[in-house]
Amino acid sequence: AGKDVAADGSYSRRVFASFTFYKGKASLSMTPRLPEFSKMVSGALKIERMGVILLEFCPAIGPRKYDYEKKQMFALSATEVGSLISLGAKDSCEFFHDPSMKKSNEGQVRKTMTITPMSESGGYFFALSVVNSILKTNERFSVPVTNAEFAVMRTSFSFMLPYLMGWDQYMRQLPTSTVE
Amino acid sequence: AGKDVAADGSYSRRVFASFTFYKGKASLSMTPRLPEFSKMVSGALKIERMGVILLEFCPAIGPRKYDYEKKQMFALSATEVGSLISLGAKDSCEFFHDPSMKKSNEGQVRKTMTITPMSESGGYFFALSVVNSILKTNERFSVPVTNAEFAVMRTSFSFMLPYLMGWDQYMRQLPTSTVE
Amino acid sequence: AGKDVAADGSYSRRVFASFTFYKGKASLSMTPRLPEFSKMVSGALKIERMGVILLEFCPAIGPRKYDYEKKQMFALSATEVGSLISLGAKDSCEFFHDPSMKKSNEGQVRKTMTITPMSESGGYFFALSVVNSILKTNERFSVPVTNAEFAVMRTSFSFMLPYLMGWDQYMRQLPTSTVE
Amino acid sequence: AGKDVAADGSYSRRVFASFTFYKGKASLSMTPRLPEFSKMVSGALKIERMGVILLEFCPAIGPRKYDYEKKQMFALSATEVGSLISLGAKDSCEFFHDPSMKKSNEGQVRKTMTITPMSESGGYFFALSVVNSILKTNERFSVPVTNAEFAVMRTSFSFMLPYLMGWDQYMRQLPTSTVE
Repeated sequence: AGKDVAADGSYSRRVFASFTFYKGKASLSMTPRLPEFSKMVSGALKIERMGVILLEFCPAIGPRKYDYEKKQMFALSATEVGSLISLGAKDSCEFFHDPSMKKSNEGQVRKTMTITPMSESGGYFFALSVVNSILKTNERFSVPVTNAEFAVMRTSFSFMLPYLMGWDQYMRQLPTSTVE
Repeated sequence: AGKDVAADGSYSRRVFASFTFYKGKASLSMTPRLPEFSKMVSGALKIERMGVILLEFCPAIGPRKYDYEKKQMFALSATEVGSLISLGAKDSCEFFHDPSMKKSNEGQVRKTMTITPMSESGGYFFALSVVNSILKTNERFSVPVTNAEFAVMRTSFSFMLPYLMGWDQYMRQLPTSTVE
Repeated sequence: AGKDVAADGSYSRRVFASFTFYKGKASLSMTPRLPEFSKMVSGALKIERMGVILLEFCPAIGPRKYDYEKKQMFALSATEVGSLISLGAKDSCEFFHDPSMKKSNEGQVRKTMTITPMSESGGYFFALSVVNSILKTNERFSVPVTNAEFAVMRTSFSFMLPYLMGWDQYMRQLPTSTVE
Repeated sequence: AGKDVAADGSYSRRVFASFTFYKGKASLSMTPRLPEFSKMVSGALKIERMGVILLEFCPAIGPRKYDYEKKQMFALSATEVGSLISLGAKDSCEFFHDPSMKKSNEGQVRKTMTITPMSESGGYFFALSVVNSILKTNERFSVPVTNAEFAVMRTSFSFMLPYLMGWDQYMRQLPTSTVE
């Protein structure tokens, strides 16, 4: 169980390059959110908030038409990404998020995402349930992800993982301690 | 089934770095095509067209001589790349493209690419069939790809996949929301 | 057995982006340290010291409270990283370091790190023992790392490995020998 | 069988970051050589020569002392790298090079490299034989490479492969065809 992070994306140049699977009952989009750094007095950068992969589910309201007003989001942490990319063909996993964890309205909204293997053809079901105990609502999404689509997720998430951790910043340093 | 994309490569500096397998009956080249972005009023970049890996088959007309006039192309989408890089040793896959999908001449040309395992030594056959119902032609190519060559494809395609999706653009952002 | 390297991090802009697993008895942090280069008379860069992944163990002194004064470090070399990322599900490995190897106080402190598989659920125990024969102390840490967390390590360490070797510097070269 | 390429490394800033395994009878170094491009009239870059991974064997002449005068080199092509990184635990492979292929002295020197699995502990033997029919010499090297060391090779060679093919140059392009 972790906190659901909705990064505000306050970067110098915003980029919109979501990758989306359009399916019969819902669409599933994925978008990386980079980590945030603070600058210390020394000029050093310190990671403040880890990056996430934002998953977005939209219900279908017609052939290739989706209702973005009713979208629900789920932000995968680095460790949850680790869980996804190491899933065996017959493994499943489940993540719980409370968007208001450690706030006054903690426990009112409960998000559960499960990834379960499809029986015959390979691939996985991505299911999201959002239970809101104030509004008395329970929204459910389920999107079938084929083996090929899951390979896209696994490869792009593996690529992104070190960036979510801010580790690419180490490589942007320039060595100064070289002996001439 | 997807649309066959022939990117126009309108970039600041063009690069020609195809990787080619020269075989007895045909050659098979692969070249990445980066995605295209549009700039929004806000200055943000929005992906307009996903990148592809362009496969190009040329028939042999002599020892290490190939007829480039008779080449046929097949552009692998990100998800088709996902299918290729996750192929098990005994798996096969098949892709259908119509270069004129959603245009007036839709259905006149039909491209089918199949990747099937070679029986003994490992590796795969890459076969392309292009059926043109107007010209009444049916061109076929088949190129044997060894395990070592397929490893080159798998590794370079996996490397390229996040770039096809435009996800490298996220990393070119500079963080501005840092607290000083 | 190798030498325990404590890089001084003398880079133009320092970055703090450790990734930490907070567990019941101890925390386990990981941080990359880039290699160091010297500049030769010709202007060429020569690697002087390979990079490492620095593992840091801190004992818990309360719920999510850790005593950083009592931390112990272990710097994984490129080959030790290779050992870790190629660990099979039932494999274990062990590394020995002497922080004073080839110095006058060699043999006084002995660090041993073992990675052993957890029986049921997958994942590994990371255990560090630091024996100081002068102070007559023997400190021990053991941190359970889940499969998902180990996938984060495996992916981020694999990403970092070529940078530890300084191989990214090859790509920062610009080709000049092109024929016009 | 391929041609043995000895790249001249004529880059703006040379880098020396070989990675070396020092063993009892010989050392084995590995160093990437980037591809070479030519600039076309249009300003476009065209790959002229693919990059290689240069393997260098030196005989031992004492404890951790190696005779660099007697070194022998073997340049792995992209496809040979593909062969190496896809080697199964019980697979072996063999490569033949003639440094003078298609020259007047073709066939005088014959280099054979074999990678064969070690029986018990995993890992591979890297053996190089250089037969010179003019000098009537036959030099042989054999270096045991552990599983951990092979993981370093596999990971760093996989990382380097797209660069050997020049595919990173695609990503250095800047998109200009964006619609405003």
